[in-house]
This record gives sequence, C-alpha cells and structure tokens, in this order.
Amino acid sequence: MPDATPPAKAVPAVGRLALHTKTLQRLSLAECVELCVRKGIAGLSVWRDVLHDAGVDTAARLLRDAGLAVPALVRGGFFVHADAAARRRADDDNRRCLDEASALGADMVVLVVGSGNGVGLAAGREQVRDAVGRLLVEAETAGVRLAVEPLHPMYAADKSCINRLRDANDLCDALGHPSLGVAVDVYHTWWDPDLDAEIARAGRAGRLFGFHLCDWRLETRDLLLDRELMGRGCIPLRHIGQAMRAAGFDGFDEVEIFSEDYWAMDPPAFVDAIRDAYATSC
Amino acid sequence: MPDATPPAKAVPAVGRLALHTKTLQRLSLAECVELCVRKGIAGLSVWRDVLHDAGVDTAARLLRDAGLAVPALVRGGFFVHADAAARRRADDDNRRCLDEASALGADMVVLVVGSGNGVGLAAGREQVRDAVGRLLVEAETAGVRLAVEPLHPMYAADKSCINRLRDANDLCDALGHPSLGVAVDVYHTWWDPDLDAEIARAGRAGRLFGFHLCDWRLETRDLLLDRELMGRGCIPLRHIGQAMRAAGFDGFDEVEIFSEDYWAMDPPAFVDAIRDAYATSC
Repeated sequence: MPDATPPAKAVPAVGRLALHTKTLQRLSLAECVELCVRKGIAGLSVWRDVLHDAGVDTAARLLRDAGLAVPALVRGGFFVHADAAARRRADDDNRRCLDEASALGADMVVLVVGSGNGVGLAAGREQVRDAVGRLLVEAETAGVRLAVEPLHPMYAADKSCINRLRDANDLCDALGHPSLGVAVDVYHTWWDPDLDAEIARAGRAGRLFGFHLCDWRLETRDLLLDRELMGRGCIPLRHIGQAMRAAGFDGFDEVEIFSEDYWAMDPPAFVDAIRDAYATSC
Repeated sequence: MPDATPPAKAVPAVGRLALHTKTLQRLSLAECVELCVRKGIAGLSVWRDVLHDAGVDTAARLLRDAGLAVPALVRGGFFVHADAAARRRADDDNRRCLDEASALGADMVVLVVGSGNGVGLAAGREQVRDAVGRLLVEAETAGVRLAVEPLHPMYAADKSCINRLRDANDLCDALGHPSLGVAVDVYHTWWDPDLDAEIARAGRAGRLFGFHLCDWRLETRDLLLDRELMGRGCIPLRHIGQAMRAAGFDGFDEVEIFSEDYWAMDPPAFVDAIRDAYATSC
C-alpha cells in the first residue's frame, strides 16, 4: 500500500477511525493532537505515559480545544501480585487512573489485568475479579466505564491472566455491572475459534466498549513491538469488524500499532498509510 | 540449579524421562544416542533433520543397538496450503514420514498441522481434518500412531491452526480412529483455562499419546528459540503432569527445549541439568 502524499490542509474526518497515542510513539500528546486534527482523525485514545508528560490539566485542555473524542485512557489494571501491599498500590494507581479518565472525558479505561509476580493463573484470575469489583464502585462514581481487554496467550506469564474473550465475558458476568465491559483487540483475539460467538455474547450483554485494530505480521520477530498495519498481515479484519457491528458495537475503531518499523516512519506519512489501510482493509 | 558433575559411567535410567534430538541441537543422531546411553536416558524422540542426515537404516540400527525407545518421530503435518498440488506434496511427505516412523519403531508421529499459506484458520482446520483422515488409513497399515499437537496461539499464523487441546480433541472425535490421539506440550497449552478438563477428556478417550516438557521463560525474548529448562519458568509442571497421570497417560515425559542459550551449553552438562530439573520440578 503506497503512502499517500500528505495533504496541505486538514482532510475530512474518517468516520469511526481513532488512533492510540502509542501508535505515534515518538510524538508528545500535543503533537499527536495536532496530527490528528490535520489528518482528519476524530478520536485519540491516550496512554498514560504521554498524559503524565503533558500534565492532566494541559492534556484535557488540548484534547477539548481540538474537539477530539477520547475513546479510552490506556491503561489501568496490573492487579496481580503475591504481596498485599503491592495489590493496594495497584488499587491506588487504578483510582488515579479513574480520576485522569474523568478529567479527560475518556469514554473508558482499558484494563490490562496483570499476571505473574509469583501468582498462578487461576489465583491471578481471582485477584483480578476482586480488584475489578472494588474498582467498579469508584468507576461508577467517577462516571467512567471499565473495559477488560483479554491479551494474547503469549502474554499470560507477565501481563494478563485473561487471555480469551470468553474469560473476559465470564468476569463481566460474575461482577454484573453496567460500567464493566470488554475491549476486543484483533491482535490478541483473532486466533480464537470462539471469537465470533464471544463477540455476539458480549454484544447481547451490551458490553462491547472498545475495538482495537492492527494486523498480525507473518514471521513476527518480536513479541511486543512487531505489529503490522491493517491489511499487511493475516487477521481477517473485515470479518471481525462485521462481527462487532452485527453485535451492536458503535464505538471507534482504534488503531493500536506497536512497531519499531512503523515508529521509525515519518509520523504524518504513517497516519496517511493508516487512513489508506483502514479504508481498504477494514 | 547447579550442573551436576558428569559421572564417569552410565547412570541409572530416569524412569519416564526422554529427550528430543532437537533439545541437543548441535549433536548428530549418533552423538545424541551415545549421550542418552551414557546419561541413563531411556527414550529419544527423533526429529527428521538428524534422521535424514544419518540415513533411516543407520538411524534404526543405532537406536536399536543402543536399546533406546523412540517415543516419537517429529514431525509430520503442515497440511494447509491454498494450492492443491502443495497439499498433495504434503500428503506424499507425510507418507514418507510414516515409513520412517515404522522403520524406527517410533511409537507415534507428531503432527504439527500447519496454517497460513493464504488459507484462513477455519478453512485450514477443514483441510487438516481431511488430510489427517487420508493419512490415518495408511498410518494404521504402517502400525504407527498419529499425535496431533496443538501449538500455542502465537503460531496460529504460520505453523498450526489447531491452538487448543480442545480443538485437537474435537478433531480426534470427528475422525474417531484408535490410531489418532494428541501430544500435550506444556509450552503450548499451559495458559489454557480448559487444559485440565481437556486432558481428562483425552484420557477418557484413550488418546493421550505424547507429553512434552520445558518451561515458559519470563520475559521471553524470541517466539521460537527461548524455551526454559523445567522449573526455571512459570508453567505449573507438577500440576499438569499430575493431570496427565490422573487421566491415564503412561508414556514418556519428553523434554523438548528450543533455546539458543541452552544449545550453547556443553551437551553433557545440559543433560545433567535436565535430569536435575526433571527430578526436582516435574
């Protein structure tokens, strides 16, 4: 897919397309905001690293003045620890995350629930259930939704003990709260034979909060930083997108690409490539 | 875990412990056989690369003369191709694999079923079902069992469209043949919340043919070549081993470690470390 020539002025917004700040890893929040406006991107999901660099008040003003929607603050979670003091620190940090999301007017906080730290998977899932239950009370007060994002099983050891959409749905059922839902990331879930059924299940429960796009690179060279641009990998993006819409999802399609290769590109050209890829492959 | 001082003579066999030739990547088949005998390893699963280097007749003689059991010939499969001619070539290669397994007296052929090559996951699974069905007729004639090995979802794009033990069990149910079973590799399956239930299901059906051991390294640096020695990672090895035994598995515990780090070790010292790790962690 060739990169389009950058237009001289802001281009028309691309309906549901949003970016994650992490997709523009080299840019500050102010630079991300400027580029989104210039390229007609209507939504920007904000990661906490650039948020803290900018300061929450400044960030909120930048986003508001630019008229950008903030689908998600990314990310809370990391609840799993053998040590009770570490679990309390995680609770505190997640409460700060809620405050930040509220200040930004973010539609949700994405939760990467954590794993490892000497805790087995089954015990970790119990810690997650308890911690999300505690956080939900305050999320409701703050007016912020929580989206549990199942992570690919290759992150089961150290990032998430919830590795299938089914397990995220089970967690939501167990806690039964309208502020709790799921974020479906194609990178983490595309391999799952139960994906269509679990998307439909989440839709019936009204909990399809987030949808993250990228692609799976054939011959992936790195577990973290080798995601592909949509259409250049092997994920059936149209199929999954249609399953999401059919299940009632009406939020943003958030492009979240961690890639040393793409991060090395000129950011405006990368955003043009994303717009093209989104138009032709999603 | 310190490496034991190599004993001067052959040591007593360690009950169910077996190695894969791939675990001793730098060695020829003859060197693998010699080292197993010297270190009291009673079983050696043979990969086709060293088998072809040695020649099938020579290999069969070496293994027989050494009195080594051959739990598995590794590996057949790779059935998934968009092109019918490529599928026929895969069939031919799998027939050769059966002949080789028969010549070695191998207990089973491990099948890595394949994925990708322009074929989606669902369509790939249909190709696999058809191809394994064709191969089973000849496997029965050759007196060789076939063990479908589900591979970790991080290999869904290019190596296996069967990524959960449940799907391997479903395939076995669909084909319903006593020569068809599963190989459970802890590396590929440990993350799966359904693992215990699916091991029990496979046991009830009498299809637990193979069991592969290693460990999952925290902060895995490479998708292929960074497996850990048992006890140094986060897989609940004892728990899974007990589930296997409880389900009726009575075969070898085959150590299969792909690791640039361990392959760089002195092979006799590595085998001592494996014996230690097996005794203390499995």
